[in-house]
Amino acid sequence: MSPLTAPQDSSHSDRANRASQLLATVRPGLQLVETKMKAVDSALFAPLAHAFLDLIGSGGKRLRPALALLSAEVAGMTPSSAAYPRVVALAAAVEMLHTATLVHDDVIDGAMLRRGAPTLNATWSGGSTVLAGNYMFGTAARFAAQTDDIRVIRLFSETLKIIVNGELRQLRDRYNYEQEKSVYYQRIYAKTASLFCAATEGAAILAGLSDAAVKQLRDYGYNFGMAFQIMDDVLDFTSDEATLGKPAGSDLRQGTVTLPFFYYLHRDSGADDLIAYLEEQRLRADEEDATIWDHTVAQVVQEVRATGGVKAARQEALNFLEQARNTLSIFADSPCKEALLGLCDYVVQRNY
Amino acid sequence: MSPLTAPQDSSHSDRANRASQLLATVRPGLQLVETKMKAVDSALFAPLAHAFLDLIGSGGKRLRPALALLSAEVAGMTPSSAAYPRVVALAAAVEMLHTATLVHDDVIDGAMLRRGAPTLNATWSGGSTVLAGNYMFGTAARFAAQTDDIRVIRLFSETLKIIVNGELRQLRDRYNYEQEKSVYYQRIYAKTASLFCAATEGAAILAGLSDAAVKQLRDYGYNFGMAFQIMDDVLDFTSDEATLGKPAGSDLRQGTVTLPFFYYLHRDSGADDLIAYLEEQRLRADEEDATIWDHTVAQVVQEVRATGGVKAARQEALNFLEQARNTLSIFADSPCKEALLGLCDYVVQRNY
Repeated sequence: MSPLTAPQDSSHSDRANRASQLLATVRPGLQLVETKMKAVDSALFAPLAHAFLDLIGSGGKRLRPALALLSAEVAGMTPSSAAYPRVVALAAAVEMLHTATLVHDDVIDGAMLRRGAPTLNATWSGGSTVLAGNYMFGTAARFAAQTDDIRVIRLFSETLKIIVNGELRQLRDRYNYEQEKSVYYQRIYAKTASLFCAATEGAAILAGLSDAAVKQLRDYGYNFGMAFQIMDDVLDFTSDEATLGKPAGSDLRQGTVTLPFFYYLHRDSGADDLIAYLEEQRLRADEEDATIWDHTVAQVVQEVRATGGVKAARQEALNFLEQARNTLSIFADSPCKEALLGLCDYVVQRNY
Repeated sequence: MSPLTAPQDSSHSDRANRASQLLATVRPGLQLVETKMKAVDSALFAPLAHAFLDLIGSGGKRLRPALALLSAEVAGMTPSSAAYPRVVALAAAVEMLHTATLVHDDVIDGAMLRRGAPTLNATWSGGSTVLAGNYMFGTAARFAAQTDDIRVIRLFSETLKIIVNGELRQLRDRYNYEQEKSVYYQRIYAKTASLFCAATEGAAILAGLSDAAVKQLRDYGYNFGMAFQIMDDVLDFTSDEATLGKPAGSDLRQGTVTLPFFYYLHRDSGADDLIAYLEEQRLRADEEDATIWDHTVAQVVQEVRATGGVKAARQEALNFLEQARNTLSIFADSPCKEALLGLCDYVVQRNY
């Protein structure tokens, strides 16, 4: 979950303003994306259209579409280019796919709240929510087809596969505390960074860049996306319910191992004892009282905060961002390049 | 549900043989489709790969892929054509999309049995089933992209949208007994015929036919698909649990109005009374005992059988098939054309 759209507080609105400034240069393009996404088929029955628009509308800062638009412009395309509507289609496809996965995630997790607002899953039957997500998948596929570029369409469909595989692996790896760090990296690539890559690489392809330059923008998306997800995982430990719109430690509660916990677990030789303790508490929660697990998670969240796990994870995010910045060196200076660089700072500034 | 794969009985195996003969001419192509569909990513964890292959493997006669292959050959393509693998990709995409919708339908309906076998939904959590369906959607999109033809990809993504919209409308229209016949036709086009159209039209495009000839093959798919679904709906009234793998009247039980019931309802002036009775029984079932609704449905199934509803519906299927046959008149005689004509007979022969 992105804290960009968490309930208002002063530091939140400062951050929102900063994001807004960074994206100002592609604001008109983002408006086109917005219009495209909200053109809901009137054949859809009214209650769905309403819920659907609510969900689309609560989509935060449109970071993924913004990356597509910024990449296209860094690559030399302008909003007056004949091909610009195809970049808008790509941007809308990426965001619609992102929203579809969020909707299905809520079914899979049984989540009733997202960004502090009730999920479709909370107000509808699970079946309707599955269909609403499918409608979004279908819309995303249609938008992707509108890029009119077979390479971009293939990239998009490969990305869909990577995301779904990643979700399946996340389900498989739940409550497996002994996974390697590489498994975590694979997972966050699949669930987050892959879609950022699709946005930046797809835009570079549509802008007609050379393969080498396409690779640079893809790498920007990859490194930025990895850092973005690490920071999301850090915030799940460092933030609080008022900011997150859900209790802290929700990954851990669902048995998903993230980087801060990984460092905490491996900080000394006590990993086996901790794993045994967690498994025992979860068993007790199942058998006696579900709140036992909530208390255990809250306790571990405190300990992860108190040790160096958060700092070490944050450092890894900084390393990825350094690499993201480096990928841009081949491109001429421009307001869009400035924005892509500025977003790298912004991602870690989210950490309070 | 297709009765093609229902538990064995002698008339079933006669029909299966007949279908097998009709499809003999495209057997090698179907084998390529099969191999393509079953090449499951080894990165998927074992339990899923197994369940996934089970589900893919129980897919019946591969009627939709067969229609794609037959259409391509009627249009002049041969299995040795350079473009044939793209038709195989289309055929696999269509069948994978079909399977994905079946998997999600089981979540939406809470169904535990399909074709007499336990659904993924019965053995897995709903969340895993949603993901398994998404994996299939993603695979279908990848296969569609492999057709390397932007028109076919667009057709495919439009079809996905039509199918999902149709499912949403079906959910909306549940227990609405006063719907027009046109609503039923829209629904069966969306949920069934549209995918048959995608198979035949897509193949015609890949074979390089003129727009007019593409339209003819699309119309074949449309008319054949409409007849196919009407006959499926007829069988839900005329067949029994042993053949169907689920109790008769399952559409009616879920509040889905189909053609035989439509004719039964409108056979004389008693429609309002019947609707009131059904609504009262469903209320009683909710409040008192769920089996009341089962008994009511069983009683209505008997009455639909005893009146002319089944016959009238079957006649409409025959009319569609007549039109399907007519669309083929522009094509030269060939074993594949014979097969497409033979399938028209086969669809109504399923009616016992």
